[in-house]
Amino acid sequence: MLQEILERYKRVWALNYSQALLAWDLETYMPEEDSALRGEVYANISTMIREQIMAMKEELERIREEDLDDFGKGTIRLLKRAIKFYSAVPKEITEELERLTSQSAVVWRESRKREDFASFRPYLERIVEIERQIAEKLGYEGHPYNALVDLYEEGITVEDLDSIFSKLLPDLKTILEKVLSEGYFSSPHPLKEMSYDVKKMEEVNREVLKILGMPTGSFRMDVSAHPFTIRISSKDVRITTRYEGVDFRSTIFSVIHESGHAMYELSIDPNYEMTPVATGASTGIHESQSRFWENVIGRSKEFTRILYPILKDKLNIRDDEESVYRYFNLVSPSLIRVDADEITYNFHIALRYEIEKNLISGKVSVSDLPSIWDDFMDKYLGIRPKTLSEGVLQDIHWSQGSFGYFPTYTLGNILAGTMYHFVDDLPMKIASKDFPGIRSFLTDKICKYGAIYPPKVLLNKAFGEVYDPKRLTAYLERKYL
Amino acid sequence: MLQEILERYKRVWALNYSQALLAWDLETYMPEEDSALRGEVYANISTMIREQIMAMKEELERIREEDLDDFGKGTIRLLKRAIKFYSAVPKEITEELERLTSQSAVVWRESRKREDFASFRPYLERIVEIERQIAEKLGYEGHPYNALVDLYEEGITVEDLDSIFSKLLPDLKTILEKVLSEGYFSSPHPLKEMSYDVKKMEEVNREVLKILGMPTGSFRMDVSAHPFTIRISSKDVRITTRYEGVDFRSTIFSVIHESGHAMYELSIDPNYEMTPVATGASTGIHESQSRFWENVIGRSKEFTRILYPILKDKLNIRDDEESVYRYFNLVSPSLIRVDADEITYNFHIALRYEIEKNLISGKVSVSDLPSIWDDFMDKYLGIRPKTLSEGVLQDIHWSQGSFGYFPTYTLGNILAGTMYHFVDDLPMKIASKDFPGIRSFLTDKICKYGAIYPPKVLLNKAFGEVYDPKRLTAYLERKYL
Repeated sequence: MLQEILERYKRVWALNYSQALLAWDLETYMPEEDSALRGEVYANISTMIREQIMAMKEELERIREEDLDDFGKGTIRLLKRAIKFYSAVPKEITEELERLTSQSAVVWRESRKREDFASFRPYLERIVEIERQIAEKLGYEGHPYNALVDLYEEGITVEDLDSIFSKLLPDLKTILEKVLSEGYFSSPHPLKEMSYDVKKMEEVNREVLKILGMPTGSFRMDVSAHPFTIRISSKDVRITTRYEGVDFRSTIFSVIHESGHAMYELSIDPNYEMTPVATGASTGIHESQSRFWENVIGRSKEFTRILYPILKDKLNIRDDEESVYRYFNLVSPSLIRVDADEITYNFHIALRYEIEKNLISGKVSVSDLPSIWDDFMDKYLGIRPKTLSEGVLQDIHWSQGSFGYFPTYTLGNILAGTMYHFVDDLPMKIASKDFPGIRSFLTDKICKYGAIYPPKVLLNKAFGEVYDPKRLTAYLERKYL
Repeated sequence: MLQEILERYKRVWALNYSQALLAWDLETYMPEEDSALRGEVYANISTMIREQIMAMKEELERIREEDLDDFGKGTIRLLKRAIKFYSAVPKEITEELERLTSQSAVVWRESRKREDFASFRPYLERIVEIERQIAEKLGYEGHPYNALVDLYEEGITVEDLDSIFSKLLPDLKTILEKVLSEGYFSSPHPLKEMSYDVKKMEEVNREVLKILGMPTGSFRMDVSAHPFTIRISSKDVRITTRYEGVDFRSTIFSVIHESGHAMYELSIDPNYEMTPVATGASTGIHESQSRFWENVIGRSKEFTRILYPILKDKLNIRDDEESVYRYFNLVSPSLIRVDADEITYNFHIALRYEIEKNLISGKVSVSDLPSIWDDFMDKYLGIRPKTLSEGVLQDIHWSQGSFGYFPTYTLGNILAGTMYHFVDDLPMKIASKDFPGIRSFLTDKICKYGAIYPPKVLLNKAFGEVYDPKRLTAYLERKYL
């Protein structure tokens, strides 16, 4: 019975695989005029995926889960989740959302450029309305936001998140104040302004990929406007980066970050290929891998030591190693999330989480967002945006209808702290370039299982604990204090 | 009714679109280890295409074609052709052929390298058997090869081809003998041995694309082992070329050739997008566009005049313009088809046509091919291969199961001669870079119709004649004598 389901699932797998390639190509090499047609292709493939999965419904209801092993159970769990979604949320709603978000992403871009919230507002209002409808259709216990966040991080709730942020934020505030008062990591740094040659920088990034041991036969790196990772298959995972010509941290750490995502996908048991479980366990767990590689490893003293000679050679920097380490780890309250450091980043997330939660429950309305945003910014980081593009219009997520996604960034950071705690001799492993050793720890604990287990089950199995904010605090204290 | 069919067809269109992108990526950027999985994706998508088309069968049988316009009639004709194929040829046969050819292409490569026909023979024997089965299942009047060639060039028969080659070959022989005896186009040329810098050569090719007016917003060029053109959509057509580092004609003329294919696809009425008729009318007509741009335009005196200053600038050649023109148009009997000149090329095709025809009818057997090949080569061009890789093992087509494809190359050459005849003031148009004018002639006569009409109907409509070998002869006489 499971065998028949898996056999039928191969078509869904082929469609997903195609969509992944379509998405990668769209961001890298597609001639621009094709974009409208590509949207049409995407919509048709999505419809076929829905149909193929819904066609398995009866078989899935008849299967006796108690006879299955963990792989079988995970497969059925994921297919039933998909069927639950498709059954609850009518095609008309997802189609409207898709059409709306493909327009509103364009409107958002324009609004941000013109510092004009009014033109974006009606789109965002409709998106929020649809998200609330989706929550209602899906059903939930407690807060309606639970239905949405569960789509990204299965089993996580507003109760969990409130508890996490209420513990995390005061600790982060304490650390931040100390770091700022000491001044070492928070004073200005000239390398932030140094411009670089893109060709040279690409060579640095290629060296980084070599050091990390990215497998050339099943991996590649390209350039796109926004860095991302995409799994095509267990033998084909791709990342992108971008070159802004200045502040070279950002391209290096985006490469390490995306490589972290890629290593996760490349470490899933290849026997799961062509099945629903051949994917990361959740958005938060995925983010934990990328953050662990980017921050805990990439921004460490030991990794800086490895990078330093390459940077000196390729970019002719004159700063000493210590100064480069400081540059990699500068801390200061800032307005833009994507530029934020390891400590303040989570305040940006807390702000968005609070707003999303209250939008979905109807406690705040879209028209109030600009001022609510600025007030939160003030409360959390003591700074106020001067413009909308520095404030409420800075992120693309809401224009894409991604409600429930933001909190998983902080979950990822917390879990990166968890892994920092559990990997033995991490600094020595980094110093000796034992990245295969680190990777095999991650593979055994997390990656190889793919999405067989829900995230909380997986985390308990791996570490005997779930999202514990103290792990992040402990890591940051060790690093910065 | 037609509207409903077209609405359903959108899924097939989306699947075809995806397969095109998968194929492009496979040859350009795919990490190599993904190839087996990609084959699996391709097979699943093919199955879904078959299912989606077969699901339209009843509707298609009920539709009253007499009520439709040419577009509607063309759409129904093509869908019925697909249904005829799927109904006649069981899934098991096409699946075996796909599996077999994906293996045999690898075996063929090895056999060619090792000069060993014996290891390839059993594969080719099975492929020929399957091709004969397909012909039987499809049904035919007259020669069984008719069923196969019709898959590439709808409506063409062995009778047509025999008549064409029997008129064409004696004329070509006469021209060839004169050219060889005069010596001007047949004496050795030093530029053939000149090596070039790949980066510089890429710049030349980019200039060529600019001169031809390829639209950057819906077109791109990449590098692959074998040059090809692929249509993703009416807004996204891609070509590739390769750089061998020596004999720079070959990369330039492959770029012009593939651009000819691309211009065809980009000139199909964009209103046909997402329908079955948004494709070239046949393989031969497609080849006519590429050959016309490559040979009739690209290798002309006038185009050489345009290219010459660019070549001088980028490649530092010291030959004068006349010498470059001669280099572009060297003629001599040679063993390898893909290196052949405009005159001898068609003998290579005639050879393959005769062999294919007799293999399918059972008149010759695979084991006799090496000696039959050499005898034909001797008969047509007066030279004998010394090795199998110069002879029967040189082409990939048979290992891919492409029986019936070869003759369309010569049909394309003949039609390129036809267009040479019908375009007014062609030399002046080329000299004044009036490529938009040439293109609009081709668009009006051929390209815009897509596959609405069967090739013979289209040609009659455009020129009042079909494949007339005299057109090629007249063009070559004008050029070389």
